[in-house]
Amino acid sequence: MENDFEHYLIEIRELLEREDLPRLRDLLDLMRIQDIAHALMMLEEVQIPRVFATLPRGRKVDVFSYLDPHHQYQLLAQVSAAEARHILSEMLPDDLTALLEDLPGDEVRRLLRLLPFRAIRRALTLLGYPEDSVGRLMTTEFVSVRPDWTITDSLAHIREHAERGETVNVIFVTDEDRHLLHALPLKRFVLGRASDPVAKLPAAPVVSINAQADQADAARLIQHYDLEVLPVVDEENILLGIITVDDVIDVVEEETTEDFHKMGSVGMLTLSLRDAGLPLLYRKRIGWLLVLVALNLLGGVIIAGFEEAIEALVVLVFFLPLIIAGGGNAGAQSSTLMVRALAVGDVEIKDWLRLWGRELGVSIALGLTMGLAVSALGFWRGGSEVAVLVAIAMTLVVTVGSLVGMMLPIILTRLRMDPATASVPLVTSAADIVGILIYFSLAVALLNLPAGGLP
Amino acid sequence: MENDFEHYLIEIRELLEREDLPRLRDLLDLMRIQDIAHALMMLEEVQIPRVFATLPRGRKVDVFSYLDPHHQYQLLAQVSAAEARHILSEMLPDDLTALLEDLPGDEVRRLLRLLPFRAIRRALTLLGYPEDSVGRLMTTEFVSVRPDWTITDSLAHIREHAERGETVNVIFVTDEDRHLLHALPLKRFVLGRASDPVAKLPAAPVVSINAQADQADAARLIQHYDLEVLPVVDEENILLGIITVDDVIDVVEEETTEDFHKMGSVGMLTLSLRDAGLPLLYRKRIGWLLVLVALNLLGGVIIAGFEEAIEALVVLVFFLPLIIAGGGNAGAQSSTLMVRALAVGDVEIKDWLRLWGRELGVSIALGLTMGLAVSALGFWRGGSEVAVLVAIAMTLVVTVGSLVGMMLPIILTRLRMDPATASVPLVTSAADIVGILIYFSLAVALLNLPAGGLP
Repeated sequence: MENDFEHYLIEIRELLEREDLPRLRDLLDLMRIQDIAHALMMLEEVQIPRVFATLPRGRKVDVFSYLDPHHQYQLLAQVSAAEARHILSEMLPDDLTALLEDLPGDEVRRLLRLLPFRAIRRALTLLGYPEDSVGRLMTTEFVSVRPDWTITDSLAHIREHAERGETVNVIFVTDEDRHLLHALPLKRFVLGRASDPVAKLPAAPVVSINAQADQADAARLIQHYDLEVLPVVDEENILLGIITVDDVIDVVEEETTEDFHKMGSVGMLTLSLRDAGLPLLYRKRIGWLLVLVALNLLGGVIIAGFEEAIEALVVLVFFLPLIIAGGGNAGAQSSTLMVRALAVGDVEIKDWLRLWGRELGVSIALGLTMGLAVSALGFWRGGSEVAVLVAIAMTLVVTVGSLVGMMLPIILTRLRMDPATASVPLVTSAADIVGILIYFSLAVALLNLPAGGLP
Repeated sequence: MENDFEHYLIEIRELLEREDLPRLRDLLDLMRIQDIAHALMMLEEVQIPRVFATLPRGRKVDVFSYLDPHHQYQLLAQVSAAEARHILSEMLPDDLTALLEDLPGDEVRRLLRLLPFRAIRRALTLLGYPEDSVGRLMTTEFVSVRPDWTITDSLAHIREHAERGETVNVIFVTDEDRHLLHALPLKRFVLGRASDPVAKLPAAPVVSINAQADQADAARLIQHYDLEVLPVVDEENILLGIITVDDVIDVVEEETTEDFHKMGSVGMLTLSLRDAGLPLLYRKRIGWLLVLVALNLLGGVIIAGFEEAIEALVVLVFFLPLIIAGGGNAGAQSSTLMVRALAVGDVEIKDWLRLWGRELGVSIALGLTMGLAVSALGFWRGGSEVAVLVAIAMTLVVTVGSLVGMMLPIILTRLRMDPATASVPLVTSAADIVGILIYFSLAVALLNLPAGGLP
């Protein structure tokens, strides 16, 4: 498929150069709208309106919907006011909302002036829902029927309204006050007896979601129940719109990318890495780096407190990277497991006591293995006393590091913060500090070294 | 919804205790199959076959398909051979393949003995495709029509075969030799004129995928083209099966979880964290921890080489955690950004030169900021010479750490390994070693300290 696309793109460029518009039109006819949109965004800025102008009227809105907001806005500024009005008023409400929410306020106002009143009201309603809520993602274009209509009447109604609806694979049954009763696959209507009322079709209990709910919850419902379409209702169960499974894939991918970046202590980067400029990348990264430096300063302060012990036995420093990394890495593992399990809903906060017990067991076992592994080294570098010291220190540090890594995401969730903020670098730094303290305290106690106070 | 489920579960347990099977049956009638399956897996082992037995025959197979392989296998051992045969032969081919691929060989053979010959052949065909290939995920149940059939004939055919098909929202048009021609939404048939041949319906070019291709590619096609169903073909374009969008959400989530766990240096954990036992968690974690200990040993060896410098100026150790963490954290950030961008197809390997240039710019800027931040501290602890040392060292270490973090995923991809193996702990450890070396070498050079050889 991708080779096809490269081929299309080369041909579009050639035809533009030769100004062969009839053949360009033929070529575009063969292409899918997503590929046309993708190709437009790879052309030079001046070429975009020329290619867009050759599209048949019916496909313009579809292609436009697949452009990114930046290109959408540019294109709107280049077409006639009449065409801009046509495009904006034909766009599906959720696509229009997505465009408006990415633009600065004065440009939103400029665009709204182009829109018919009905479309403005609809767009403003959707923009009124909280960010990342179901209301922002839903489309208000769906087909609904009444329970007392016959199958024949319903199919006629569906035929009539199908063009406006984003999907007619699922038909909603509502009462006269638009309360949601059922969601029936189109298949049932096709397979049903023509003269039966809709109420006679077999219907499973309907799953729906409130427009104020989080998009991630919609994704979970759709995934759990294998739904194609999820109806969106208000507090009184009045049907407001629908969310389709393809909207949700994008939500899942976006949320995962956010979690990923947080886990690596990068600020949320919604732009693609390819397109992000140097200043943006700098801003997204420097904050966390400075926070972590401040945190690791504590490690330095603790070391300064043990300067006399280090001067007395400099071989202690040899094991410092090992001890620090052991605790940090074990913590990184357990926080990674925990953050992901919380994100996919695999564990819940109320499980924490049982998880804590198991993590204690796992981390003691891990710590003992690693303690044994490094004790041989300790013996070689510093004799039996040092061997005992590094074995015990490693066991303690790995155990404590693991528990820190597991608890931090849980504590953040309790504080209603995103557990992914318990990033690997943060957990590693926290485990480092605890590790340094444990290691040198043990050294002073076990090896009778001089203990200096903190600086 | 979730409160509903908790409520259902409590009621099932009560009804089982009171042995009130008629009311249990009524309750199950109200529940969705996914919730029944979910509830079954939360009951005690002896209760599962009792609840399963009260299900109407038609729902048994559906509920069974949503159990995890462990519960599926246990249940099969507890029902009669006739019932097991019924369930296995009615399961959709992709669900059956998923069950068989998770079982050990001798249990697969035991189950295959229960199956009718046709089902065995089908299951073995699917199992013949490589792991994680589209062939393993597809179902062979779909509805296809011929281009010369009329809409009326086609709808009759669809009605007849709809029950077997996993979805009839998309109908495939094939020639007599089963070559894929078109994929048409059911909506087109409902809206079309009854006497027209199928060939007259408007059809976009069809997007398909080879059965040998990777599941992640299928996910990308479905996502890019907003498809509900993706047809699967062989080398000769013969239609073999279909993949639906809900299969793909699970693939996206699974792949992401794998990437996530790899980034935290945990072995692939396909089981849920909630259900994973202590020994399994130990095994998945200890390997990487030991590898990382071995790597960090190098840091210790480098330190040992500078023991004389440390003895001469013990304040150097004070800055060690800061320098180490600075490089490691910057590396963690850039590897996280890179791994995710490669996973979602946002950047490609051929972009690396441009990315490398930008990363160099970003990391020098980050390094300078952090170098300045710690130099004040260096002045306070050790005078102007130490201030200059830590500023230069921090700048270099952050720059090198970032570049290591960005290059490692690219190199792994070139070597045809999963870039997510360049986990945060691995990158951190690699950056640590380089950081220690840079820091102490600079110290010896700038401050004229005694330089000992490696031990």
